[in-house]
Amino acid sequence: MDIQSYMHTVGRAARVAARELARAETRAKNLALETIAHAIERNAATLLQANDRDLEAAKTRDLEAALVERLTFNESRISSMADGLRQIAQLSDPVGEISDVRYRPTGIQVGHMRVPLGVIGIIYESRPNVTADAAGLCLKAGNAAILRGGSEAIHSNKAIGACVQEGLRTAGLPAHAVQVVETTDRAAVGELITLREYVDIIVPRGGKGLIERVSNEARIPVLKHLHGVCHVYIDDRADSDKAVRIADNAKTQRYGTCNTMETLLVHKDIAAKILPPLAKIYADKGVELRGDAAASAIVAGMKAATEEDWYEEYLAPTLAIRVVDGIDQAMDHIAQYGSQHTDTIVTEDWSRARRFLREVDSSSVMVNASTRFADGYEYGLGAEIGIATDKLHARGPVGLEGLTSLKWIVLGDGHIRS
Amino acid sequence: MDIQSYMHTVGRAARVAARELARAETRAKNLALETIAHAIERNAATLLQANDRDLEAAKTRDLEAALVERLTFNESRISSMADGLRQIAQLSDPVGEISDVRYRPTGIQVGHMRVPLGVIGIIYESRPNVTADAAGLCLKAGNAAILRGGSEAIHSNKAIGACVQEGLRTAGLPAHAVQVVETTDRAAVGELITLREYVDIIVPRGGKGLIERVSNEARIPVLKHLHGVCHVYIDDRADSDKAVRIADNAKTQRYGTCNTMETLLVHKDIAAKILPPLAKIYADKGVELRGDAAASAIVAGMKAATEEDWYEEYLAPTLAIRVVDGIDQAMDHIAQYGSQHTDTIVTEDWSRARRFLREVDSSSVMVNASTRFADGYEYGLGAEIGIATDKLHARGPVGLEGLTSLKWIVLGDGHIRS
Repeated sequence: MDIQSYMHTVGRAARVAARELARAETRAKNLALETIAHAIERNAATLLQANDRDLEAAKTRDLEAALVERLTFNESRISSMADGLRQIAQLSDPVGEISDVRYRPTGIQVGHMRVPLGVIGIIYESRPNVTADAAGLCLKAGNAAILRGGSEAIHSNKAIGACVQEGLRTAGLPAHAVQVVETTDRAAVGELITLREYVDIIVPRGGKGLIERVSNEARIPVLKHLHGVCHVYIDDRADSDKAVRIADNAKTQRYGTCNTMETLLVHKDIAAKILPPLAKIYADKGVELRGDAAASAIVAGMKAATEEDWYEEYLAPTLAIRVVDGIDQAMDHIAQYGSQHTDTIVTEDWSRARRFLREVDSSSVMVNASTRFADGYEYGLGAEIGIATDKLHARGPVGLEGLTSLKWIVLGDGHIRS
Repeated sequence: MDIQSYMHTVGRAARVAARELARAETRAKNLALETIAHAIERNAATLLQANDRDLEAAKTRDLEAALVERLTFNESRISSMADGLRQIAQLSDPVGEISDVRYRPTGIQVGHMRVPLGVIGIIYESRPNVTADAAGLCLKAGNAAILRGGSEAIHSNKAIGACVQEGLRTAGLPAHAVQVVETTDRAAVGELITLREYVDIIVPRGGKGLIERVSNEARIPVLKHLHGVCHVYIDDRADSDKAVRIADNAKTQRYGTCNTMETLLVHKDIAAKILPPLAKIYADKGVELRGDAAASAIVAGMKAATEEDWYEEYLAPTLAIRVVDGIDQAMDHIAQYGSQHTDTIVTEDWSRARRFLREVDSSSVMVNASTRFADGYEYGLGAEIGIATDKLHARGPVGLEGLTSLKWIVLGDGHIRS
């Protein structure tokens, strides 16, 4: 198969389907989502069989355990997928939403209408549930989707794709509104990310390597999530109980997520009070601490943090700790080493809270709350396609709204410009 | 001078200034704008002298008349520049604006805060007033600007840059918040559009050649305005008077602007009624008509339109005319040949107006109004940096808001995720 012409065919079909989907009624899109959910549950046995083929292949390819774990289906994961689609059906339709319509002095009315982006290319690894999630979100937002999962999940992805097709057919929506790329050839990714004529935006979901490759080579805008080096800064005017609770939760509630705290910054005047009880909690939970000299002087036995530690996204029970002179040094540290993902200040001081909120340039900036809240569900988006760390278009958790754009509408009654 | 290291120095300084500017108070930014306006008026003689040097050089380089016209300063253009800056000072400051703050079931409050984009690179041709306009808009939106004007306007641009420096100094803002690139070497553009580390977005303003070059070679997001192939569709249920008025105004109010109608689509059942009076108006104003067979059968002496005419942005007193079967063919034509800029339907039919608004995928979609309204001032933005025809981030006329982004803010009181 000629990959280039295959991907052009996929792209062209997506573009045609996108125009039709943009006009689709909410009722049809919801019917498709409900039908896909039902098909996934009804075909659970088929999905498990397809998944077994992927797991067999994973064994011969000697995939690492974490990847295999993410790849594996079971009854509960299958019903989560179906539930997720039903939740998306419940969300209100963003497409066609009209806002901010105002009369202008000339007599025309000017406002906005929310519209789909068009064609979205999703490139992801391992987790086959992304096939259902991404298809559902793109569909609800009126976009055609081209789904390029990892080769290790090809059979699982195709089996889910068949359920998606059933839903589209039942609802009378175009079959090419969601296409699962059927080749595992890596060249397909290279083609997809340069199909400027047919694809409006690329969403990569996966490890740093994938995202960097896609960002560097794409000739299409990329909605990317690079990494999360999140900070909690405990100010000397913090309430100690809140500080301990937040610093514990931000690090230990889950280790492998992008909104987990990776570096703790503590004001020098509160460090001696806060660090010992925190170190005890971390020790009990098996978190390795790496501190600067001042932190190590307070808590014995800490490993010395190196310059590299400040840049590190551990995604593991490891935490870097630095004692700072005050809010300015904390914000300088965040600006220099952070990844503009999520940063929190713990303080009872109004002026400092106000400054931190304004001056920290991250996609989520928090006061007295755990970084772990940075999440589409927690923010009320209902579902997310990813977390964007860039500033353009969408930022932070990206839900249905981030998969749409606005157009201007002008309502007149024979008005002309003079 | 080593262009690469020069541009890196400019970029690095802009990045540092951007962080400071993001924190700047509204009062300081407005003081800078007022001071720049005043300096431009006070230094009118100096600006005219600098402009004379550019005009002298233009003569020896044999620049075309239209370019020279755009390059030329006079008293009135100088006061327009100053007025424009004062108007920007009057606009409310978008930075720090908090919106949509809601309590979530967990007890945290989640909302948005508007923030600057960071560093904006503007690449433009000929018109030196862009130096003042762009500096003013970027400054008010809290962004550092790197301004790269055409070599033909280098002395004028530097003279304006000196006024900008005076304003920044007076207001206590960082001198590198606005930098005029001092070299006319074209390699500087190539460097600027690949300075990913320091520049957040590129705004090219100029001809198609410039914009295509920048879009193709940039490694940074580009806020671009490609071209405007705008349509008016006159439905058979149009009010004839409104239709004639709008089709006249959309074409003839100004010929050289991107929101000027380039193709007129007319329903077959109203063509015989509408085209003769319109043709008379166009003939009186010297507009050349190029029609399809059906249009030519109604109005004698029309040139035959070719396939290329439907794609053409004339920017001139030339108009393509096509007779269509109805709204579907009109919308198909717009989807195929249009540039997603601005399109209007003229109709009294509610259902068709509703369909056109929803289904036409352009940055401005209008009902019973002239395409000429697609403009930042007419829409109430106060001023515009350009008109974006892409869908991501900003679309249509881009004012202060389009030069900013949103971050999420989370307000808690010791809240943790469970």
